[in-house]
Amino acid sequence: MPQLEASRIVLASRPKGKPTAENFRTETILLPAPGPGEILVKALYLSVDPYMRGRMSEAKSYVPPYEIGGVVGGGAVAEVVESGDDSFQPGDVVSGQFGWQTHALVPAKHLRKIDPSLAPMTASLGLLGVTGLTAYFGLIDICSPQPNETVVVSGAAGAVGMTVGQIAKILGCRVVGIAGSDEKVQYLTDKLGFDEAINYKTTDNLTKALKHVCPQGIDIYFDNVGGEISDAVFRSLNTGARISVCGQIALYNLEQPDVGPRLLTQVLIHRALVKGFIISDYAARFPEGVKQLAKWYHDGQLKFEETIAEGFDQTVDAFLDLFSGANLGKQIVRV
Amino acid sequence: MPQLEASRIVLASRPKGKPTAENFRTETILLPAPGPGEILVKALYLSVDPYMRGRMSEAKSYVPPYEIGGVVGGGAVAEVVESGDDSFQPGDVVSGQFGWQTHALVPAKHLRKIDPSLAPMTASLGLLGVTGLTAYFGLIDICSPQPNETVVVSGAAGAVGMTVGQIAKILGCRVVGIAGSDEKVQYLTDKLGFDEAINYKTTDNLTKALKHVCPQGIDIYFDNVGGEISDAVFRSLNTGARISVCGQIALYNLEQPDVGPRLLTQVLIHRALVKGFIISDYAARFPEGVKQLAKWYHDGQLKFEETIAEGFDQTVDAFLDLFSGANLGKQIVRV
Repeated sequence: MPQLEASRIVLASRPKGKPTAENFRTETILLPAPGPGEILVKALYLSVDPYMRGRMSEAKSYVPPYEIGGVVGGGAVAEVVESGDDSFQPGDVVSGQFGWQTHALVPAKHLRKIDPSLAPMTASLGLLGVTGLTAYFGLIDICSPQPNETVVVSGAAGAVGMTVGQIAKILGCRVVGIAGSDEKVQYLTDKLGFDEAINYKTTDNLTKALKHVCPQGIDIYFDNVGGEISDAVFRSLNTGARISVCGQIALYNLEQPDVGPRLLTQVLIHRALVKGFIISDYAARFPEGVKQLAKWYHDGQLKFEETIAEGFDQTVDAFLDLFSGANLGKQIVRV
Repeated sequence: MPQLEASRIVLASRPKGKPTAENFRTETILLPAPGPGEILVKALYLSVDPYMRGRMSEAKSYVPPYEIGGVVGGGAVAEVVESGDDSFQPGDVVSGQFGWQTHALVPAKHLRKIDPSLAPMTASLGLLGVTGLTAYFGLIDICSPQPNETVVVSGAAGAVGMTVGQIAKILGCRVVGIAGSDEKVQYLTDKLGFDEAINYKTTDNLTKALKHVCPQGIDIYFDNVGGEISDAVFRSLNTGARISVCGQIALYNLEQPDVGPRLLTQVLIHRALVKGFIISDYAARFPEGVKQLAKWYHDGQLKFEETIAEGFDQTVDAFLDLFSGANLGKQIVRV
């Protein structure tokens, strides 16, 4: 039986605080030819995402933890090399959740064929995949945006954040982004049509800066970040504000629970709604989301941006860079 | 024109931190006979409530602030003395929001006749009034309790808290109350059927105590208190938990915003819903709430408890005592 040499990145140890290269190990394995119902794929693009940090911890969380010695899981785009199932042919481009490996043997039912003529194939990892769906349902279902409301997005130059802001603009909202560099701020206002954007790293008093650019207060907050940025946003909430808690990247790497102002007082005073979510909560509605996102994309109303690292051996570095805020939009690795 | 001498308590100054007697002043005024559409009433019972502390501050809050020199507003039960409107006759028992005064001249449209044969007349201040409605909508609408879910109530021996716990029991939930004395704890479990109750003042580690009495985790938290008690509850939330933020009495008297663990991490991890509310949000549904509460009361499924202070001159002390946790159930003043 022919065998294929594949590389894969496994979790060597659980990070304490910020992950380092030592938490990962690259292994080489031999993959047999696919059995019935199995597909042998060659990875083209891998996704690296902030939520993966959560799965590297042992603690109970919103996604189950990775196992030590197991492949780091996540979304990927691949090409079929050899197929044990009639519905896939060699050369088909597919997406799946097989994680950080150059090749994988995957049950056919875990793969989805994608049509690269509809959108760039990496869109299935981003705008038309988990990223876009997270932005779509987290904003629309939890926050019910209304025209002329003020929407603030943290982590605004990340893949989810920039999609949230653009959707809010499409829906007629006033949109303010918070990001971590002047380049990102300029990108959000010049290229994506955000009304305002703030570089929190060069802003002395974020509370004051937000009050300045949100003179009518904040109706909706889409939170990718947490920590002091969220504290500042909560100080300008309007009555009836809605807050979608999508990520807390500022806190993922802390070894101790972080301390800050108690936010329930603001929740009470402003009769606010705060909701944490995970995109799988909306699985039954994915087709609705993909359809709307694809329509906006083809109408030119919704752009997406990727930062692509070149080479499978760059995967760990690309992941570690997420926590320094280096990426603009979706971080992807071209294998 | 005959005139009637009335006493009223006005806000003399805004409290800084915990209110004191010096923040209030008793005045005597002369009330004229009622004009057309006006009713002259003699107060029988006055309500003193934690939310009034919020209205004594100048800051933007969920209810508008009291004015300096103005009567302290709130619910009251009164008897009609003289009527300038055909729909009210002397001797009628009415409820209204005319606040801390022995007599008042009130527009007829601001009064509601109550039938003392249906329930004790003070029920219109408590179980069948704002208190009961707050418990009913805050629990049912925000938290959607399901049978066998675990419900934790803070401020459980307060008027709202004890009603929340009893409603949750009626709906088949497991109910745990948090209160501030052994007497209250015993009352909750022995008289009101709470499954468990914890005296937070004599519990070293509330987080651990809650985990012990909530082995299945916490599905619903009805928060009247805030602060460290809420921090402890958040550590045992289940996936999909719902948190109704009704009051933050632990924080009302703080001069500086309080600091604690950042709760958005728990909100994200457990995909929790947190919602602040004010009962007037549900005004359109009050008849539904009163009807259901009255039915449960008459069926003997819902009890209520009052602490009654005797005499108008005890009003300020009764209010100040709320913050030491002296009252069991609804605090009322018999004028």
